[in-house]
Amino acid sequence: MAPQFTLYTHKGGPNGWKTAIVLEELGLEYESIYLDFQKGEQKAPEYTKFNPNGRIPTLIDHSNNDFVVWESNAILTYLVDKYDPEGKISVKGFEEKIHQLQWLFFQSSGQGPYFGQVSWFQFFHAEKIPSAIERYQKEILRVFGVLESVLSKQEWLVGGKLTIADLSFIPWNVLAVNVLLKDAPGYNGFEQDFPALHKWHNALLARESVKKVYAIKDAVSKA
Amino acid sequence: MAPQFTLYTHKGGPNGWKTAIVLEELGLEYESIYLDFQKGEQKAPEYTKFNPNGRIPTLIDHSNNDFVVWESNAILTYLVDKYDPEGKISVKGFEEKIHQLQWLFFQSSGQGPYFGQVSWFQFFHAEKIPSAIERYQKEILRVFGVLESVLSKQEWLVGGKLTIADLSFIPWNVLAVNVLLKDAPGYNGFEQDFPALHKWHNALLARESVKKVYAIKDAVSKA
Repeated sequence: MAPQFTLYTHKGGPNGWKTAIVLEELGLEYESIYLDFQKGEQKAPEYTKFNPNGRIPTLIDHSNNDFVVWESNAILTYLVDKYDPEGKISVKGFEEKIHQLQWLFFQSSGQGPYFGQVSWFQFFHAEKIPSAIERYQKEILRVFGVLESVLSKQEWLVGGKLTIADLSFIPWNVLAVNVLLKDAPGYNGFEQDFPALHKWHNALLARESVKKVYAIKDAVSKA
Repeated sequence: MAPQFTLYTHKGGPNGWKTAIVLEELGLEYESIYLDFQKGEQKAPEYTKFNPNGRIPTLIDHSNNDFVVWESNAILTYLVDKYDPEGKISVKGFEEKIHQLQWLFFQSSGQGPYFGQVSWFQFFHAEKIPSAIERYQKEILRVFGVLESVLSKQEWLVGGKLTIADLSFIPWNVLAVNVLLKDAPGYNGFEQDFPALHKWHNALLARESVKKVYAIKDAVSKA
């Protein structure tokens, strides 16, 4: 039988892997379709009929009338609201759900785009602009500082337990720590500058779901 | 009696005005506190105890045990989930709510940050970098194209009616049309290039709530 979900994603983009992590956490069956950006598959009509934004990820739930949803954090919210009734990785009270959402919006507006700009100006922009790289590296450090200020007082972002709010930060934080903060002014190392964030990040990386997804990522990027 | 809500906001920042529009739409009583960024009030402990991100807006609901929420689109979702039971400006079915959320995430991750970078490189960056301005102006035009592709087929983003998903786009679109797209390569004018978006945008601007909020904005920026 075909898996319950189709996940349109990409071998490199962080937001697809984020979605895969949550599907794994919930034990849901999915087929990943890796779009080839060099062929422009994300802008082709067969894809933009599902996602007019022409980006990844997009999820289709075949058990719910082929329900289509895009924007990774909307996907995460859909998955836990529908398939995590026990609250394994989500909160359930109204106010706590709003706070879960608040952190998802901070991730999507404060972490993702700014971290992504470091990557752009380090690797893709036609001219080298050190002041632009520095601007966005400083923003990574600012966002890390916000997370540190919270995680030095509590173990998880919402509700005293691990939720999708925490999980949503993983892929861009991995890239920031491993790649984007190289030579960042005033940065002395992840554990030294952000000990609580470092501990939280490592607790997230130790999840079976995360290890499995990064193993898949390694495998498909070699394929 | 004190108003039900305190809105920590700023005279200039788009996301505070977005929140005010939704409070007005729902007829809710609020007091706006305009933080002085030049004095660093948004980074002061009296504020970051509410919002560790040190940005605006933050909403406090005094009728709900002084419930505190930040991230503008989390605030919008809180307001309609709690105070719009009839669905004046929101959808209520589960799948439609997920799609409302999807567009809110597109606004917060795709519109806000990228439109904001044009503003940064036009007005605040220490050196003039035409290739950076052009990069982000192209991104505005890309986002406008995504909205046009949808709004040329339907009047509103979700559920066949005006919702917070539509309202959330107003302040940054106003800035894009009036300021940020000046001299953008390949741009021939808002109505000419994006007729459906232009019509939708003007329908939003014609709302009483929007007119009232922009009148307040004019008044406080002159004060």
